[in-house]
Amino acid sequence: MVEETRERIMEATYRALCEQGYAALTMQDIADECDCSKSLLHYHFDTKEDLLVALLAHLLERFEDRVPVDDGDPRGQLVELVELFVFGGDRDLDEHRAFNTAMLELRAQAPHNEAFRRQLAENDAHVHATVAAVVERGIETGAFREVDPERTAAHLLAAIQGARIRWITIGDDAALREVREALVSDVVDGWLVAG
Amino acid sequence: MVEETRERIMEATYRALCEQGYAALTMQDIADECDCSKSLLHYHFDTKEDLLVALLAHLLERFEDRVPVDDGDPRGQLVELVELFVFGGDRDLDEHRAFNTAMLELRAQAPHNEAFRRQLAENDAHVHATVAAVVERGIETGAFREVDPERTAAHLLAAIQGARIRWITIGDDAALREVREALVSDVVDGWLVAG
Repeated sequence: MVEETRERIMEATYRALCEQGYAALTMQDIADECDCSKSLLHYHFDTKEDLLVALLAHLLERFEDRVPVDDGDPRGQLVELVELFVFGGDRDLDEHRAFNTAMLELRAQAPHNEAFRRQLAENDAHVHATVAAVVERGIETGAFREVDPERTAAHLLAAIQGARIRWITIGDDAALREVREALVSDVVDGWLVAG
Repeated sequence: MVEETRERIMEATYRALCEQGYAALTMQDIADECDCSKSLLHYHFDTKEDLLVALLAHLLERFEDRVPVDDGDPRGQLVELVELFVFGGDRDLDEHRAFNTAMLELRAQAPHNEAFRRQLAENDAHVHATVAAVVERGIETGAFREVDPERTAAHLLAAIQGARIRWITIGDDAALREVREALVSDVVDGWLVAG
């Protein structure tokens, strides 16, 4: 498949997923969004599940481009990462909510679906390693106290995941801001930097 | 409905939910587990959804009995609460996993289901208030630094929720222990008590 076709299908899958949610999403929705035929989609991907696994892999590639650059300020880079995960970066908040709502449905399938589970585990491991690397750099430069970088990354990312899920399941907007504040003021500045 | 009948139906609903998961669960599964007729269930509850909302309310009542008592040691009580939420208390780990897997499916329905959303919000508010009250008592007795109790509760509970979801969706057992360790050693002892 040429890169341009792949890119076009992935973008369409992302938009259709945000609009329809996971359960209601059909190959036809994706074809409509892509302005292509269902048979073209089926030529490249057997099922909706295959398309969604490919989308997760695609989002992981794109994540690389969204990671804030290391400009010699690990504290600033870590805070930017927290905000990217909490608020969705350049996505607007409605899109961030729609995407996370669909992702929650997809995650809820993972215990019963090995392909989802494996790709989610790969994405997860990569994101954790990225956060842990920033914490590690902060320790090396003396900006952070000597913590376990893996544990700190697991802690930050678990809190962000929990806050996003509370936000989308019970509609609590304050949950996002409150946990962002706790992670930045209490964990990063109150504990990691203050050490 | 007499209290004994209600209790029996709720216990059966809980067991059937753990065994079948949310999507596959039927009124017949619950009737079988309850050793009663489907018509008895339907006499009290119109739908599976009504039964599950009642189960959430029942679990909230039961949560009261599981909260560790205040024995004048807020740090100990907070750590016990964290462990109750992370590891499921007296549930064995397979049951804790099965229950949380079903709850994740149910939560994923909440954005589209107002009855679930309202009951989850009520449970959530109650659990947050319980944790915040322990933090508040710790501040009053001088055991903890002067933090925002609501924010600290939101932070702890979000991290626990995120860790449980990582555990059940990608099967990462270490995630539970790692986040438990981060919350107890880094947040409670490293920041809250150390202040």
